[in-house]
Amino acid sequence: MTITHYHFQTASHIVSGAHSLDLLGEKLDGLGLSGLTSIFILTQPSIVSLGYADHIKSELTKKGITSEISTAIKPEPTEENIEEVFQTFLQGEHDAIIGIGGGSVLDAAKILAVLKTNDEPISALVGTNLVKRRGVPTILIPTTSGTGSEVTPNAIVTFPEKELKIGMVSPHLLPDLVILDPALTLNLPKAITAATGMDAFTHALESYISNKANPFSDMFALESMRLISGSIQEAYHHGENMKAREDMLVGAMYGGMALTSAGTAAVHAMAYPLGGKYKISHGVANSMLLPHVTAFNADHIIDRLEQVAGVIGIAKTDAKRPLAEQVVRQIEAWTADLHIPQQLKAFGVSKEDVPALAQAASEVRRLMDNNPKPMSISDIEQVYMKLLGA
Amino acid sequence: MTITHYHFQTASHIVSGAHSLDLLGEKLDGLGLSGLTSIFILTQPSIVSLGYADHIKSELTKKGITSEISTAIKPEPTEENIEEVFQTFLQGEHDAIIGIGGGSVLDAAKILAVLKTNDEPISALVGTNLVKRRGVPTILIPTTSGTGSEVTPNAIVTFPEKELKIGMVSPHLLPDLVILDPALTLNLPKAITAATGMDAFTHALESYISNKANPFSDMFALESMRLISGSIQEAYHHGENMKAREDMLVGAMYGGMALTSAGTAAVHAMAYPLGGKYKISHGVANSMLLPHVTAFNADHIIDRLEQVAGVIGIAKTDAKRPLAEQVVRQIEAWTADLHIPQQLKAFGVSKEDVPALAQAASEVRRLMDNNPKPMSISDIEQVYMKLLGA
Ligand SMILES: NC(=O)c1ccc[n+]([C@@H]2O[C@H](COP(=O)([O-])OP(=O)(O)OC[C@H]3O[C@@H](n4cnc5c(N)ncnc54)[C@H](O)[C@@H]3O)[C@@H](O)[C@H]2O)c1
Ligand SMILES: NC(=O)c1ccc[n+]([C@@H]2O[C@H](COP(=O)([O-])OP(=O)(O)OC[C@H]3O[C@@H](n4cnc5c(N)ncnc54)[C@H](O)[C@@H]3O)[C@@H](O)[C@H]2O)c1
Ligand SMILES: [Fe+2]
Ligand SMILES: [Fe+2]
Repeated sequence: MTITHYHFQTASHIVSGAHSLDLLGEKLDGLGLSGLTSIFILTQPSIVSLGYADHIKSELTKKGITSEISTAIKPEPTEENIEEVFQTFLQGEHDAIIGIGGGSVLDAAKILAVLKTNDEPISALVGTNLVKRRGVPTILIPTTSGTGSEVTPNAIVTFPEKELKIGMVSPHLLPDLVILDPALTLNLPKAITAATGMDAFTHALESYISNKANPFSDMFALESMRLISGSIQEAYHHGENMKAREDMLVGAMYGGMALTSAGTAAVHAMAYPLGGKYKISHGVANSMLLPHVTAFNADHIIDRLEQVAGVIGIAKTDAKRPLAEQVVRQIEAWTADLHIPQQLKAFGVSKEDVPALAQAASEVRRLMDNNPKPMSISDIEQVYMKLLGA
Repeated sequence: MTITHYHFQTASHIVSGAHSLDLLGEKLDGLGLSGLTSIFILTQPSIVSLGYADHIKSELTKKGITSEISTAIKPEPTEENIEEVFQTFLQGEHDAIIGIGGGSVLDAAKILAVLKTNDEPISALVGTNLVKRRGVPTILIPTTSGTGSEVTPNAIVTFPEKELKIGMVSPHLLPDLVILDPALTLNLPKAITAATGMDAFTHALESYISNKANPFSDMFALESMRLISGSIQEAYHHGENMKAREDMLVGAMYGGMALTSAGTAAVHAMAYPLGGKYKISHGVANSMLLPHVTAFNADHIIDRLEQVAGVIGIAKTDAKRPLAEQVVRQIEAWTADLHIPQQLKAFGVSKEDVPALAQAASEVRRLMDNNPKPMSISDIEQVYMKLLGA
């Protein structure tokens, strides 16, 4: 680690534990938010079906707060989709927002909150530190254990015409309150549990080996890997296990804290083009890439991988090299057990596509620059080729 | 641990590292605070002598922000002292506040910020969750490694006529930005390094064995103890060691995060009466009490002390009891090496004072209720008696 200054940002208030959603009303009082008159509840159909949106609505009614439920945000929302929902939000004259859902819903909630107080369109706010004013009070309640969006100052917008996803980054995107209730994730489908869980693990591992790794991010990253490695298989095979779901949810949040401080690296840079063009879900793309990129990096991060081995439960040996290899094997074993595809062919990618993919990945400089071992275009191509069985 | 819901609150933005104070101007931009016109800089004479207050003033001038420096806050400030300084703050028509100093200055800065936006006197705001509105933007820069006040939602006010210290507790006391610059602590006198450092260690240990300990507080508490145990003697004997000072500063902050989530326990409850009546500094009182209270609690926290032993560098043994005893011996060894008094006689306390002290300590229910082993009045008396050589 060569950096001397390091940063940490997070949500200022977090409540956790099974059924902690029940504390919502009490927390509104504690945060001085009980004077609100109307709240917009942004969520997704699965959460409405499970009855959670109505539960929140009736808790708010008890406090004399009116509310409106919207499920109009689509997964990986586009600029147009968010602007549309913003019109509904405006018409309702709501003075606060609750986002309860996966990363897509949470990101959209964060954006709506600042759209309301900053007189600018989304296109003028994407990028770093372009949001001038605090948003309306925001409460985020994740229902996947993946992005850690509930504690990051980032929100991702899809621009389909540009085949691009762009991040809005601003401290004003951090919410006023986060509720981590593992009961909300008991019904998360197996495939989403697997992909979002491996996304979270990737956040922690990449933050830990990032060139910007630091004492803050290291603590969160190691604890995140410890929690996720100990619970991801149980959460997948026995989704009703509350303890495993809680460890996943807290682990994913720590992953978000780690990446806020240290950033992700080559895995995320290489995953983006796969998502943009071939609609491979973000967690699946990361899972496929993680073992190969880690093997590529290994000789530059041999001491760090020894620590990773320690927290993911690999028995200590005297030599470091075998430990690093075991970390790679362990990641592959998880993706196999979680039935995550490990080859690109199934998604319609062929060898001819590799140069364009490698070019696009190498242009994600913000992340590639965090990678501990520099990756040439040819290094990147070789990793993609491995995913094509070459 | 029996609790199922747990909470975490902290400052949303933290910057750390040697000379990170130099990032102040840049951070004001990033936080959207560069539109401020006038800032009140609350500090203490030592920081003015070292040139840091003027350094901040000139950084602000470069941004077109006027500022006023005040050193009028006294250590462990009284209600009257803070109200007085508030008048100066009001007259200056400042729209933000920077607190740079020990816990006394930071606590006062937090209070001034909310006094400005809440039309109430201090006496109406002390207690829990009585502050209705967010304060003006606040930046906190600690110069001791002790209280962790920079990341806690608490501020302590002394009421001399009642021989009492009362806490103001509200999420609105959390600052907008924290800067942890170990360079500011290189000149911290030995005795203050020792007492405030042991206060920080006590925060971590008590949070870890508190009845309200939880997965959030445990992570911070263990990391805090790891950092402080590894650096407190070096920081004391070689105050100019930047790495040791940085570990102390980050460790103390984690201690504040841990106690925000889990609370402190009997040591702090028993330290308060010693501070109120005999003017024994808070860190010294904690250091004297910590080994004896830990020995009293030991049979209820034997597994937890095994973990503590692990992070403070005591070699693992098969039996747990000897490990717990070694933790107690280690704490005593530190206080001896740091020349912290270990007996109450020197402060004018005699055996006749013990019943009143024990009564006062037992009335601090909020903290006593966190203690893992219930303490009767007679248990408390016996601990105080040990500090009188009995
Ligand atoms: N803000 C950040 O820091 C950050 C970081 C990484 C990714 N992202 C963004 O987050 C989005 C992805 O978020 P995600 O991975 O959480 O997926 P998601 O929010 O898109 O959800 C995936 C699917 O799972 C469903 N779902 C969610 N919770 C459920 C539950 N409890 N039960 C049943 N079904 C449920 C959703 O309805 C959706 O169909 C992308 O837009 C990505 O770009 C943001
Ligand atoms: N808010 C909280 O969560 C919290 C928790 C515990 C205690 N407290 C309060 O904090 C106060 C104690 O704070 P503290 O222990 O940091 O001590 P302090 O702020 O009272 O400072 C102690 C002495 O050290 C001097 N000093 C501080 N920094 C220095 C430096 N870098 N170089 C030279 N001298 C320096 C001060 O001028 C002062 O004389 C008390 O009022 C206590 O009640 C608050
Ligand atoms: Fe990701
Ligand atoms: Fe303390």
